[in-house]
Amino acid sequence: MAQRSKRPELSAAVYDQFYSRGYHGVGIRDITTAAGAPQGSFYNHYSTKEEAALEALARYGDPENYADLLERGEPPLPRLRRHFERIRDDNAARDYTRGCMLGNFATEVADHNTAVRDEIARDFGGWAAAIAGVLTEAAERGELRESLDPAAAARFLLNAWEGTLIDARVTKSEAAFTTYFTAVFDVYLAA
Amino acid sequence: MAQRSKRPELSAAVYDQFYSRGYHGVGIRDITTAAGAPQGSFYNHYSTKEEAALEALARYGDPENYADLLERGEPPLPRLRRHFERIRDDNAARDYTRGCMLGNFATEVADHNTAVRDEIARDFGGWAAAIAGVLTEAAERGELRESLDPAAAARFLLNAWEGTLIDARVTKSEAAFTTYFTAVFDVYLAA
Repeated sequence: MAQRSKRPELSAAVYDQFYSRGYHGVGIRDITTAAGAPQGSFYNHYSTKEEAALEALARYGDPENYADLLERGEPPLPRLRRHFERIRDDNAARDYTRGCMLGNFATEVADHNTAVRDEIARDFGGWAAAIAGVLTEAAERGELRESLDPAAAARFLLNAWEGTLIDARVTKSEAAFTTYFTAVFDVYLAA
Repeated sequence: MAQRSKRPELSAAVYDQFYSRGYHGVGIRDITTAAGAPQGSFYNHYSTKEEAALEALARYGDPENYADLLERGEPPLPRLRRHFERIRDDNAARDYTRGCMLGNFATEVADHNTAVRDEIARDFGGWAAAIAGVLTEAAERGELRESLDPAAAARFLLNAWEGTLIDARVTKSEAAFTTYFTAVFDVYLAA
């Protein structure tokens, strides 16, 4: 009987290992061990470690992961806030470890690997565009500070968010998120 | 004649290698090669790679590096802006590589190493306190948005800055900085 492919287990292990331990901190053996697969099997499915990392990044950046931004049932700014609160709660549930995979790979790998950098740029770009859509909706309703450009404001929100995750990770506390929500929703965006 | 100690060259190489290539991406051999020192000499000066990383972080976080925040000759908010503009210019001059060593080690190492995490927390804390001092000065002059708490606002500025460095690094462009300066100085802080 032919052996079932270990591709799903390998793919899950690639995602989990790179997310929890970064790029250089992970070896092929870590991935195959986590997948319960023979060490040689990695190269049946990925030609390089870089290819596996790109798969993990694309999965992390999948627009499905911010589909909640596009649900039009709730007014735009409360919906945007709930989006970030959900990620905050995910971070709190894992004791503020892992942060954002895009930010992690950006700081560790982007300087040295153009393919990784391009994938991160694409993923951040998609996420920022979705946020900009919500801010445009808020502007149309007169609920956004008038001087703001939705595209630039979205990028600022995303950048501030990435730094907030770093802060929370270092201080192991929810305070960074509280600071973010106050600064962004009570001050910066407020009409 | 006794050989001169290679400590200064090793210390410079430790800083430079960890800053440009992260923690796991650097081996002891990279450091000694960059220092022009024999490979065994590393352990004459550092007991572990972690100890070397902590030295690099402490040097990066040295309050001397943000002494410009404390020079009282210029009004507080223009002085704060000039502080971040100086770092922006440093980043542009190296083609937006390297980012912030504190942010880099936070994303790559902080989850797995308490000593590194504590050093980063201390360094961010010192920097944020210096920024908070400038914001307090601005508040006393009536030049700060009244609703802001200087300590929380300082941390928000620092977090947004860390994310801005990530953005600039990924997009290889000054746009992230322009977005930051507009959002922070024209909107968020403005009285």
